[in-house]
Amino acid sequence: MASGVGGGSDEETVRNKQVIFRDYVSGFPKESDMDVTTTTVKLKLPEGSNGILVKNLYLSCDPYMRIRMKRIEGPNLFSSFTPASPLSGFGVAKVVDSGHPEYKAGDLIWGTTRWEEYSLITEMDGLFKIQHIDVPLSYYTGILGMPGLTAFAGFHEVCSPKKGEYVFISAAAGAVGQLVGQFAKLMGCYVVGSAGSKEKVDLLKNKFGFDEAFNYKEENDLNAALKRYFPEGIDIYFENVGGKTLDAVILNMRAHGRIAVCGMISQYNLEQPEGVQNLMLLVYKRIRMEGFVVFDYYNIYSKFLDVVLPYIREGKIVYVEDIAEGLESGPAALVGLYSGRNVGKQVVAIAHD
Amino acid sequence: MASGVGGGSDEETVRNKQVIFRDYVSGFPKESDMDVTTTTVKLKLPEGSNGILVKNLYLSCDPYMRIRMKRIEGPNLFSSFTPASPLSGFGVAKVVDSGHPEYKAGDLIWGTTRWEEYSLITEMDGLFKIQHIDVPLSYYTGILGMPGLTAFAGFHEVCSPKKGEYVFISAAAGAVGQLVGQFAKLMGCYVVGSAGSKEKVDLLKNKFGFDEAFNYKEENDLNAALKRYFPEGIDIYFENVGGKTLDAVILNMRAHGRIAVCGMISQYNLEQPEGVQNLMLLVYKRIRMEGFVVFDYYNIYSKFLDVVLPYIREGKIVYVEDIAEGLESGPAALVGLYSGRNVGKQVVAIAHD
Repeated sequence: MASGVGGGSDEETVRNKQVIFRDYVSGFPKESDMDVTTTTVKLKLPEGSNGILVKNLYLSCDPYMRIRMKRIEGPNLFSSFTPASPLSGFGVAKVVDSGHPEYKAGDLIWGTTRWEEYSLITEMDGLFKIQHIDVPLSYYTGILGMPGLTAFAGFHEVCSPKKGEYVFISAAAGAVGQLVGQFAKLMGCYVVGSAGSKEKVDLLKNKFGFDEAFNYKEENDLNAALKRYFPEGIDIYFENVGGKTLDAVILNMRAHGRIAVCGMISQYNLEQPEGVQNLMLLVYKRIRMEGFVVFDYYNIYSKFLDVVLPYIREGKIVYVEDIAEGLESGPAALVGLYSGRNVGKQVVAIAHD
Repeated sequence: MASGVGGGSDEETVRNKQVIFRDYVSGFPKESDMDVTTTTVKLKLPEGSNGILVKNLYLSCDPYMRIRMKRIEGPNLFSSFTPASPLSGFGVAKVVDSGHPEYKAGDLIWGTTRWEEYSLITEMDGLFKIQHIDVPLSYYTGILGMPGLTAFAGFHEVCSPKKGEYVFISAAAGAVGQLVGQFAKLMGCYVVGSAGSKEKVDLLKNKFGFDEAFNYKEENDLNAALKRYFPEGIDIYFENVGGKTLDAVILNMRAHGRIAVCGMISQYNLEQPEGVQNLMLLVYKRIRMEGFVVFDYYNIYSKFLDVVLPYIREGKIVYVEDIAEGLESGPAALVGLYSGRNVGKQVVAIAHD
């Protein structure tokens, strides 16, 4: 696929496969909401551009992308995807040509790119140069990228964790959840995760070192399940799913508990979100429930790397990725997030260098 | 009514009117859920008691009392009222006889007492001796008692207010709301309150100095009303009502907004609380929503008095009370809270000294 890429020669025009977002989606997204098409691209920046032209290596499938498939009106954290244009999202890429003083051909970056083989990036905010390549490059879509910083900031900055506290994580085998659990274990917390298959539950217990884990699909009564795993109650809930799960967790929170709201994947495909009924317990139990967004923590990214890279190298943190090969596999990989098909961080590999 | 009270003579037995809680309530409480009965009491402590015998002067009608009319199972912030026994609640009382070294006959106190003319108090936690009597004694059921400290701690400790911020208060003419608004104005915030009648709205604007106020019963679309009063959005919401109001407020919160959850009076009479649907916005807007309970702030009560007493004396804070005369008027006064019949802090006066 990467054949014929010379890296900036003036004349060279190459194929550029793309994943095109057809139109706004309602309900569960389907593969057919996207088209894989082919165009061409000149491997040279347009005259006078101060952006960068990159070859995309790994694309990240993230739950929040469902939100961008809706029509979003007015100012918002996210903008809608543009119908008939390539999806955009986080990825790892290599600079092919640069008009920007801070980047040169050959640099590796992670940040916002598009779902295509080559992308012209002109919005440089939130791009990071990759400095450490003794770890898999794909990690910069996960443990060393947006999901990793999300887990780190969400747990350490929002949850105010203390040694010995009881921590519950939903969607615990996902890109963020598996890390929150490991951060919590490193801190000396008691950690239980929920996930949607036996394979994921096994991972949580045997690979990520959670104290307990359960398959929420096998629990008719989530409140009862939580009471079983947390007879003393929950100090910290790392919220990834929302809806009925949140209601059941609130019933089981301890006094002065904290809920870090990272996302609510169970709600993204609903026309009307489920109502959460137990909020009065926030008063009785003095619960702090706080939403957060990783972008607010980009300033601690280098501190985060200083903490996490040694853990990776020493094997104290592990990371499970689910890598789909080829841009053509992108739509299925993305759609699979919402039925929990992925085991670990869902990545799409487009090229390996 | 206070005739014949001699204050501790050995033999004296006097009438003791009581408001008896009949049985657990569902739906809106009614006057007939309580009985006013008469018994007698000896104006002397039982032999060996280290409690205090008090003459109740003012009783406080507080929204949370509805919660105690339900059957509450297991450990909880509140216990149920005991069927066929007097209601209990906050009040102001005078010590008639004391077996406790810290109290003597004639002392004035506020704290938890019962709905009757005379009470034997053996649980001394959360009783406060009243030191300042240049202000109305009834204020110790309101601005200088539990609701006052609730407003002060909830606003200053939970809301993290900053000068110039946009503050919305529901149930704003109530015992707590009227104070939160005045604290916020003293801090230089822009303050809007909602209440349920023209009279209350006038009070908010003309007596308490709110910048704006509206009658929520006249607004078909609360979201639209909030957009009208907060074109820039809401930084701080002091939550007293819950349900649909909370959902509409969340839509109008600004980034990094704070919601102090004090109570949810609109939900207390429902069998099933309304579901709140907009919680995903906590993420996008990085909202912190935090429940709190006044008991956690009893340690700052004297600091609170140091701040608030001068404000009262200088007329910088005013307080509106709705005083019902006589224990017989208690059931109607209490029930009236849930239809918003009271204008200002609802008090029941039993005796004036």
